[in-house]
Amino acid sequence: MVNSYLAVATPPSFFTRYRSELRDALTRGISDGGLDLYDMLRYHMGWSDSQGRPTAGTEGKALRPNLCIFACEAVGGTWRKALPAAVALEFIHNFSLIHDDIQDEDEERHHRPTLWYVWGKPKALVAGNALRLMADMSLRRLRGEGLSLTKALEACELLSGAYLEMIEGQYLDLSYEGRLSISVDDYLAMIGKKTGALISCAMHVGALIGSENRDTIEAFRKSGLALGQAFQVWDDCLGIWGDEEVTGKPVGADIRKKKNSFPVVYTMAHAQGHDKEILTTIYSKTKLDDGDVKQVLAIMEQVDARTSSQRLAEQQCGAALEALSGVELVPRVMEELIDLGNFLITRKY
Amino acid sequence: MVNSYLAVATPPSFFTRYRSELRDALTRGISDGGLDLYDMLRYHMGWSDSQGRPTAGTEGKALRPNLCIFACEAVGGTWRKALPAAVALEFIHNFSLIHDDIQDEDEERHHRPTLWYVWGKPKALVAGNALRLMADMSLRRLRGEGLSLTKALEACELLSGAYLEMIEGQYLDLSYEGRLSISVDDYLAMIGKKTGALISCAMHVGALIGSENRDTIEAFRKSGLALGQAFQVWDDCLGIWGDEEVTGKPVGADIRKKKNSFPVVYTMAHAQGHDKEILTTIYSKTKLDDGDVKQVLAIMEQVDARTSSQRLAEQQCGAALEALSGVELVPRVMEELIDLGNFLITRKY
Repeated sequence: MVNSYLAVATPPSFFTRYRSELRDALTRGISDGGLDLYDMLRYHMGWSDSQGRPTAGTEGKALRPNLCIFACEAVGGTWRKALPAAVALEFIHNFSLIHDDIQDEDEERHHRPTLWYVWGKPKALVAGNALRLMADMSLRRLRGEGLSLTKALEACELLSGAYLEMIEGQYLDLSYEGRLSISVDDYLAMIGKKTGALISCAMHVGALIGSENRDTIEAFRKSGLALGQAFQVWDDCLGIWGDEEVTGKPVGADIRKKKNSFPVVYTMAHAQGHDKEILTTIYSKTKLDDGDVKQVLAIMEQVDARTSSQRLAEQQCGAALEALSGVELVPRVMEELIDLGNFLITRKY
Repeated sequence: MVNSYLAVATPPSFFTRYRSELRDALTRGISDGGLDLYDMLRYHMGWSDSQGRPTAGTEGKALRPNLCIFACEAVGGTWRKALPAAVALEFIHNFSLIHDDIQDEDEERHHRPTLWYVWGKPKALVAGNALRLMADMSLRRLRGEGLSLTKALEACELLSGAYLEMIEGQYLDLSYEGRLSISVDDYLAMIGKKTGALISCAMHVGALIGSENRDTIEAFRKSGLALGQAFQVWDDCLGIWGDEEVTGKPVGADIRKKKNSFPVVYTMAHAQGHDKEILTTIYSKTKLDDGDVKQVLAIMEQVDARTSSQRLAEQQCGAALEALSGVELVPRVMEELIDLGNFLITRKY
């Protein structure tokens, strides 16, 4: 399976089951206040171009909302009840992407110019904050879907908690920048917050909406956390060995940017002697050139960082399935989860 | 009264009535997750220096929380019940200041280096987002103060609504940048959202927590909106004619920055002939120099922009008092409100 990321991977089929209703709910979630601000958000979501004209095929994967709805259905709940939470998760995620792109000064995302690149940083910053609020407003609709007030409030608490973890993870990520040796454990704790918290919350909240069984709900939380880590480790692999045509990033892109990335952390921890010295010298530079990237890639091969990274992603996927092994699920769920896991660690984008 | 802004102005005495408990509540509102992130927030709030050592005399005016608590007390409510909402208002306001400073690349606020200037933009952006969440978390404490669930939820709705208006106002403000003629009405609508919404919300929510009378609650909303506009117009005057030693900004600072400011909007609308041409030429430049600022100041004097701006601030203060004229209030409230109004339009900072 180690080289299976080279295969073409498509999202699991259950994504299509929710697609049309999820898209409607997301669209309704962005209010139309008559300001260009809302056009900016529709552009960012991939629904229109920078002139406001509808586009097709430019949306994101919508992983988090799909996981939330899926978890609700998997435990025997009515999946439509989870739509407002699913929308909130997608908006929080996208709010963080908008701000991330500003922070990193990234000019492209999904082969399109980023929001700040088109409209400037001040407007993009404000638009991100607006999207964050749209998430809160979507959560208010949970009660309209027939959910009890207690559950609706609990869902809000979980989302807030995950959001705080995400922010703390982003902060840790920034704090680790420029540090030469972050332990593998520190790295995993950081991505558990930065990426894992929201993905875990998606599964957790979906199960909460669909089930009364606390053990089941907890199992989904755990499963989601493992999936989140698998997702991020794979994302890190794509940032280094991804197909340029699909990811839009050249090989080694995240090395050049000195990003905190699992393969880099792993290589730092396992390189020995002269290789270790070279790495330290390269990562002490302010800017890395092509030669540096090439050298780091060679040392990565030396310590087998690619195989180890992929193995970790696979292990975390396994842990995600394992977490749900004792839970009573509606038929076909396990097959669909396996599809999902395979997608997460074979996808090329 | 036109020149009274030259007098030393101190906050109204009722601010001191709440000071100690408000400060405690604000302090508790910033969680201590063991990350430097929270030290950044305490620095921004003016409670500590950049090394985490406690400081004194560096806090902001805390206008919004004071108004919220005051409104609750004024209608006969138990003011402590309003503390969680007061804290949320102060955090939302400060979140917006953190992001504003990043947007405007302002290096100083209240005579101290801004958050981004000390810690860099990426961390400051994240810290602002964390403070925004602390506001939500504080609102959850409303129920702990014995408030009914219905009222607590209504307070949350009002805060969200005000937050959205604030964001829309910020967006409009950015959209107006570089435009040569914004009407006075457009300007007032913009500041009504950007600044007025949160100040109005402070009065509105305070009254909601303290009273059952819908007319009273509505009167406070209206009064707050007028106060907010008075506050902003006066702020605009300080940005142009303020005392450099107190504001930390040189005379004409907001002219040089081409900020949307009432005196500028007023002058654009009232300058005639040659003056109008000069203004258009100057405001078409990318960067203004000392000579440009001096010329704009001279044209402002020509059209009496200073007197007109101050008169508008006074009128809005009058409207704020007028809005409450039919409302049954506990004794001394009107006197304290007059003190507040005088402070808002005579303060030097």
